[in-house]
Amino acid sequence: MHASNLSSEEQKFQVRKLLWQLTVCDSVSDKDFEDRFQELSALGDDHIISVIEDESSKKIIATGSIFIEKKFLRNCGKVGHIEDVVVDSNARGLKLGKKIIAFVTEHAHLMGCYKVILDCSVENKAFYEKCGFKQKEIQMVKYFI
Amino acid sequence: MHASNLSSEEQKFQVRKLLWQLTVCDSVSDKDFEDRFQELSALGDDHIISVIEDESSKKIIATGSIFIEKKFLRNCGKVGHIEDVVVDSNARGLKLGKKIIAFVTEHAHLMGCYKVILDCSVENKAFYEKCGFKQKEIQMVKYFI
Repeated sequence: MHASNLSSEEQKFQVRKLLWQLTVCDSVSDKDFEDRFQELSALGDDHIISVIEDESSKKIIATGSIFIEKKFLRNCGKVGHIEDVVVDSNARGLKLGKKIIAFVTEHAHLMGCYKVILDCSVENKAFYEKCGFKQKEIQMVKYFI
Repeated sequence: MHASNLSSEEQKFQVRKLLWQLTVCDSVSDKDFEDRFQELSALGDDHIISVIEDESSKKIIATGSIFIEKKFLRNCGKVGHIEDVVVDSNARGLKLGKKIIAFVTEHAHLMGCYKVILDCSVENKAFYEKCGFKQKEIQMVKYFI
C-alpha cells in the first residue's frame, strides 16, 4: 500500500465508491464527476486528493484531501485545510487514516503552510490527537439545503 | 457604509492595517502583499475579501473573507469557508461583523454552496448564533512554526 495522488480512471471510480461511506454522494453523473476532477486538477498542489490503494485488489481503501488557503495574515501565510478523510469499513484498524493524515500534513508543510487544520466530531478527537493535532476552536455551520 | 469587494490601493493598505488587529501580520513587503493580492484576485468569485468602508473617513473598518471549496461529496457540492473576520476596535457595537457575515454568507449561497462554515472561539459562539450559525464539530490544529 502507498499514499499517492489520485490519478487513473479506475482510481476515480474507487474514490467515488469510498466517499459514499462518508456522507451523501447520491448520483453524480460521469460528466459532473469528470468536470469537478478537472477543476480540482487545475489547482495543482493547492488541492490534492490522496489515496491509499490495496495493491493486490487494486481497490482504493482510504482517502483524504487537503487544499491550501492563501492569506494576508501571518506574513501572507498559508493554511492547509484537511477534508473528507475516510477509510474503507473493511480496512479499519490498519492505521490507514493515520497514514493519510501524515501524507496530507506533510504536503501542507512542504507547501509552506504555517499550520494545518481540520474539523471533526468529538468522537474523533482522540484519533487526531494521536496524529499530533490539538483542539483549538469550535466549528460553526449554516446549511442552505 | 457598504459591504463590497476589496479593490483600490488605498483599500488594500487599510485592510493590512485592520488585519493587524486580528493576529500577527508582521512586516509584509509591498511586493509580497501585491503578489498575494494578485493570486487571490485570480481566483475570482472562489475567494473574495469583503470590506466595509466608512465613507466619511475613507477608512476600512471591517473585513471578512470567504473561499469556495469544491468537493466530490454531496453531488460535487461546494462549501464556503469564512475566514479572518475583523471589525476595527473603534467601530465595535455597530453590527458591522454581522453585516460582513451576511455578505459573505450570501456570496456562498449565490455560488451554489450547500453550506458555509467557520471556526471561532467559544467566546464568539453566541455572536455567530445570532448570525444564524450552529455549532457542529470541533477544530483541530497542528502548527509547523
